[in-house]
Amino acid sequence: MVVVMHPGADEAQIEQVIEFLNDDGFGVHRTTGVSQSVLCAVGVKRDFDVRRVKVLDGVADVYRVTEPYKFASRTWKQENTTFEVDGVTVGGNEVLVIAGPCSVESEEQMEQTAAHIAAHGATFLRGGAFKPRTSPYSFQGLGEDGLKYQRAAADRHGLRVITEVMEIGQIDLIGKYTDVFQVGARNMQNFNLLKELGRSEIPVFLKRGPSSTIDEWLMAAEYVMSQGNPHLILCERGIRTFETYTRNTLDLSAVPVVKKKSHLPIFVDPSHGTGIRGKVLPMARAAVAAGADGLMVEVHPDPPSALSDGPQSLYFEQFDALMQQIRLIANALDRTIRVPAEAAA
Amino acid sequence: MVVVMHPGADEAQIEQVIEFLNDDGFGVHRTTGVSQSVLCAVGVKRDFDVRRVKVLDGVADVYRVTEPYKFASRTWKQENTTFEVDGVTVGGNEVLVIAGPCSVESEEQMEQTAAHIAAHGATFLRGGAFKPRTSPYSFQGLGEDGLKYQRAAADRHGLRVITEVMEIGQIDLIGKYTDVFQVGARNMQNFNLLKELGRSEIPVFLKRGPSSTIDEWLMAAEYVMSQGNPHLILCERGIRTFETYTRNTLDLSAVPVVKKKSHLPIFVDPSHGTGIRGKVLPMARAAVAAGADGLMVEVHPDPPSALSDGPQSLYFEQFDALMQQIRLIANALDRTIRVPAEAAA
Amino acid sequence: MVVVMHPGADEAQIEQVIEFLNDDGFGVHRTTGVSQSVLCAVGVKRDFDVRRVKVLDGVADVYRVTEPYKFASRTWKQENTTFEVDGVTVGGNEVLVIAGPCSVESEEQMEQTAAHIAAHGATFLRGGAFKPRTSPYSFQGLGEDGLKYQRAAADRHGLRVITEVMEIGQIDLIGKYTDVFQVGARNMQNFNLLKELGRSEIPVFLKRGPSSTIDEWLMAAEYVMSQGNPHLILCERGIRTFETYTRNTLDLSAVPVVKKKSHLPIFVDPSHGTGIRGKVLPMARAAVAAGADGLMVEVHPDPPSALSDGPQSLYFEQFDALMQQIRLIANALDRTIRVPAEAAA
Amino acid sequence: MVVVMHPGADEAQIEQVIEFLNDDGFGVHRTTGVSQSVLCAVGVKRDFDVRRVKVLDGVADVYRVTEPYKFASRTWKQENTTFEVDGVTVGGNEVLVIAGPCSVESEEQMEQTAAHIAAHGATFLRGGAFKPRTSPYSFQGLGEDGLKYQRAAADRHGLRVITEVMEIGQIDLIGKYTDVFQVGARNMQNFNLLKELGRSEIPVFLKRGPSSTIDEWLMAAEYVMSQGNPHLILCERGIRTFETYTRNTLDLSAVPVVKKKSHLPIFVDPSHGTGIRGKVLPMARAAVAAGADGLMVEVHPDPPSALSDGPQSLYFEQFDALMQQIRLIANALDRTIRVPAEAAA
Repeated sequence: MVVVMHPGADEAQIEQVIEFLNDDGFGVHRTTGVSQSVLCAVGVKRDFDVRRVKVLDGVADVYRVTEPYKFASRTWKQENTTFEVDGVTVGGNEVLVIAGPCSVESEEQMEQTAAHIAAHGATFLRGGAFKPRTSPYSFQGLGEDGLKYQRAAADRHGLRVITEVMEIGQIDLIGKYTDVFQVGARNMQNFNLLKELGRSEIPVFLKRGPSSTIDEWLMAAEYVMSQGNPHLILCERGIRTFETYTRNTLDLSAVPVVKKKSHLPIFVDPSHGTGIRGKVLPMARAAVAAGADGLMVEVHPDPPSALSDGPQSLYFEQFDALMQQIRLIANALDRTIRVPAEAAA
Repeated sequence: MVVVMHPGADEAQIEQVIEFLNDDGFGVHRTTGVSQSVLCAVGVKRDFDVRRVKVLDGVADVYRVTEPYKFASRTWKQENTTFEVDGVTVGGNEVLVIAGPCSVESEEQMEQTAAHIAAHGATFLRGGAFKPRTSPYSFQGLGEDGLKYQRAAADRHGLRVITEVMEIGQIDLIGKYTDVFQVGARNMQNFNLLKELGRSEIPVFLKRGPSSTIDEWLMAAEYVMSQGNPHLILCERGIRTFETYTRNTLDLSAVPVVKKKSHLPIFVDPSHGTGIRGKVLPMARAAVAAGADGLMVEVHPDPPSALSDGPQSLYFEQFDALMQQIRLIANALDRTIRVPAEAAA
Repeated sequence: MVVVMHPGADEAQIEQVIEFLNDDGFGVHRTTGVSQSVLCAVGVKRDFDVRRVKVLDGVADVYRVTEPYKFASRTWKQENTTFEVDGVTVGGNEVLVIAGPCSVESEEQMEQTAAHIAAHGATFLRGGAFKPRTSPYSFQGLGEDGLKYQRAAADRHGLRVITEVMEIGQIDLIGKYTDVFQVGARNMQNFNLLKELGRSEIPVFLKRGPSSTIDEWLMAAEYVMSQGNPHLILCERGIRTFETYTRNTLDLSAVPVVKKKSHLPIFVDPSHGTGIRGKVLPMARAAVAAGADGLMVEVHPDPPSALSDGPQSLYFEQFDALMQQIRLIANALDRTIRVPAEAAA
Repeated sequence: MVVVMHPGADEAQIEQVIEFLNDDGFGVHRTTGVSQSVLCAVGVKRDFDVRRVKVLDGVADVYRVTEPYKFASRTWKQENTTFEVDGVTVGGNEVLVIAGPCSVESEEQMEQTAAHIAAHGATFLRGGAFKPRTSPYSFQGLGEDGLKYQRAAADRHGLRVITEVMEIGQIDLIGKYTDVFQVGARNMQNFNLLKELGRSEIPVFLKRGPSSTIDEWLMAAEYVMSQGNPHLILCERGIRTFETYTRNTLDLSAVPVVKKKSHLPIFVDPSHGTGIRGKVLPMARAAVAAGADGLMVEVHPDPPSALSDGPQSLYFEQFDALMQQIRLIANALDRTIRVPAEAAA
């Protein structure tokens, strides 16, 4: 921690700050500059609230030196994290595609979707069984039946399952059916949920909150990792800004920033990131070009009749075009996107 | 719903949109303007996703006419909502003050705080027993013991209790001790929690999420009210912006905006809204001047040793100054802030 | 400047950074912490781009210690800046009110407005002669005629004139008529204009840019002051956020923040800050309660027929109510707002 | 314009609104819905301030139907705008690269840069002669000498010149040397400057303001076009958000949004958009993948000694890597980036 004293701070104030820091277990190194003093507090305390020092008399500013997270940081682990989910490597050279509808609506919808996306190179089937909707008057999901339809369809087509868990009470049930737990953007700082998931052995897909900084996001990842679960995927899905043409502003710069600060794989969700079907394809290409390790895309057999998020769901033929185009982009960067046997034939 | 067609839209496209609207049960009224057509869809469907129409061919824009919420709206109920909590009227002419520490830390801390704030005109004692902290390495609250200390101290000094509930599983336990459930900013869109609280008879204090629009906030209130609980207090506590001097930007314009759009009482939390002790007093005055029905303020017997949020907690003497000053402001606006018997004597 | 090295930085990298800092004329003081090193660079260089150090190998973060501005800072001048404009003290105990229409439209409009606002306690008459409008198809102002109408009306009623200058070429002309130059929000970082105004002897009223941090705003003030003009008034008028009910989000926390960081007087413009007539009164009260030294308010004899900004302009009777209410608030804080002779009689 | 009446609005209020609209020359078409009335006002008035209707009694909301701009809109001109600048087609299938330093610093710097970038496929040389810096204590540019160095170096290497014009007084001088006028982000709403440039025959490169919506940006373009200059290039360069790792948040979704709403070519500036050298390459790739028609990139022969923006300027070898990688991306999308003769050889 670095404490910058006000130019007008007097010796008594400086000594009081030093004493305060000593009392909290920090060693202090003082630099007397031309116009003001700087105190370097030595000692690592990740949970120290720097504002406690900021309010002391004569203090102008306080900077945290140690990152507030440890396990999520590239300092702690320098090589990229990769792990297997049923034979597919997350975080490796292959760019992975997660696809499927917003909500699981029926057995047939799952079957059609799984068959189609698998045939075009996706490796994960998404679909929500419990839907947190902004309106209490909207469709709220099929529950366990939805999970069964999703699991069965995925198994028939060699896909893995990812589904959202919204509260601690759902972990056991969902854990019976899914390969990856998704934590939605609104739950990114549901710390109790994160801690419980940290005790699971199932990987966690952690979406960035719409008003969360990258540091807060990595801090949320730390909650999961600090409990022992190292299998985490980060997912950028747009932040809230003043621009309203798109539902959110997809922050693709987060991809290279996270790659530098953390060893964790990072995916991008251009469907929620834009909220408009017609913007999904260009932003999917851009995400892969920026270096994303994977995409999460909403696809539906019949978007106009989707029970939720239809307007941002791709038609099957749009999805096929997307796969083709991002494959070209990935190849240009020496990365791969799988070509299924039948497609390759 | 109003559908604006593109200037270049042809008859076939316009008819297709009309058919789509009819199929969904809307009557349609068409206006052909100088350069483009406008379709007014008649029929109220609060949960209709307008983006479903926005993606149709030839559509330029779609505007929702009916507000997405009903019970929370001033249209539905024109007079201000007021209700009693143990003899104190919320939403009336008296400006109420909720005060206390961020976390319940000990029996003595609760007693000292309750005695002090009651003697200066506060009517509610705050204090968290379960703390959702951004760092997994920080103090996480005393749990049920904390609730007991808070209840006992409040009772000894004629105060009401408000405490945060973070997940459905805590409702029964906390409900045994509290007079008002607080829903924290990060949980504003935890819709399952909101629905459960909507089935309770205990009033709900709903903080605005840091990246939530006023409409989304009222929509969250709707979740509670749609389940039958009409006793709701809204609380502005700062939104996230690019300015970083203050932790959040306290959006005081939200006070008159909410007063116009809704009948619900609105409070302001200048402690979280600024994150800095020294800014709490001026922003508390400003909140009352803007028309707030109450304040929530963090106070601690010894802020430097507080286990959480010490830097934004007031010292007792600062709290006394705050009460004095906001009383003058309230009086200038013909509102009151109570003067306790002993203080009045 | 404080340079934080990466935990993994090696000796060679640390030495290279020290050398770089020495070459740029900084003394360096090194602290070796538990996990990483911190370098304190001694020497004041206000225009040093800290990113030059941030990109060096092994550097994790760089913090500027010295504020980038000097004359605008409370460090440089501890007592509040006050100055006289034709017998009225700016920045003193009296809360000043600037009022008038967005645009000067006619001689009669100026006369009516000046007569009315003077009779209710305003001291400055506003009104734009050259209008920078967002649409090229809108009214663009009366030019020099407007300035003449404004000056004459102000003189007849004992008011001072404030008017906006939009480019260097207008300084001489406007300087012949005005008592204070207003720099609009969109010009806050028009550095050439600021420098020219810094060479004038006429005070400058500097509005905050809608996406400018407080630091950037004080930096803009520095441009004026560094050229010799110490007579500056800052004016908060709303920042751009994701909330769209109000045109901008009025950042009233900026009032106490600026009061702490700078000695300059700070005003608030609730008309532009909200963009809606009905929100001007509560936000005006809140601004005074937050500690503002003055207000700028749009008033028009007939708002519906105003050529610009009618919807945010107050009717005369609304202005009178505003003056009455803010006078009560100011008095509650031991500040004054003048009561004109006739009104007092 | 569509006017939505409040559910509680009475007949008198509705008639008053209709009368107001008629008086302003609009025809009105009324739809009486289940709970409220909607008025469609027929007639095109691009400069009508819809807030004038919004403040009328009984009005709930007002929506502008006609876009506020005309010439900039895809409605007015459906095919993409392309134009030639000295033999290079802007807005065509070739993705163009503008490169060079932030400031022109010397004859040699211009020569080295021009030689290098031309040899790797850039077509425009950038470089500022008049520098609007945030600090009055920083380097302010070489003025006309800078323009001469830039022109001469560009001519020697077959490049075109683009340089920033900051005020009306500079147009003539800069116009003698440049092929394209750049309008900086801070000047995006300097409407007088835009109008003057609209009377020029030299193309204009219009950067998006950091807090400007896409609509405001297109409105700024309208200012130029309404005066007769159709040769405009838009450039996304990052918007201000709460995220601080990057200087701005590069809004790449703006590329497909602008492509849909306007016929104008759109470029991206990843150097200002991120503010960090190490993030320029991935974001340049992403911009091309998103569909940008060109890039503007800062390059410097010796970034650490650059007089401005060194930390975001690429080294020559980084620029070469960038050209190679974006060429692969462009090719994957069937677009081209030129390979200079010598490079191709």
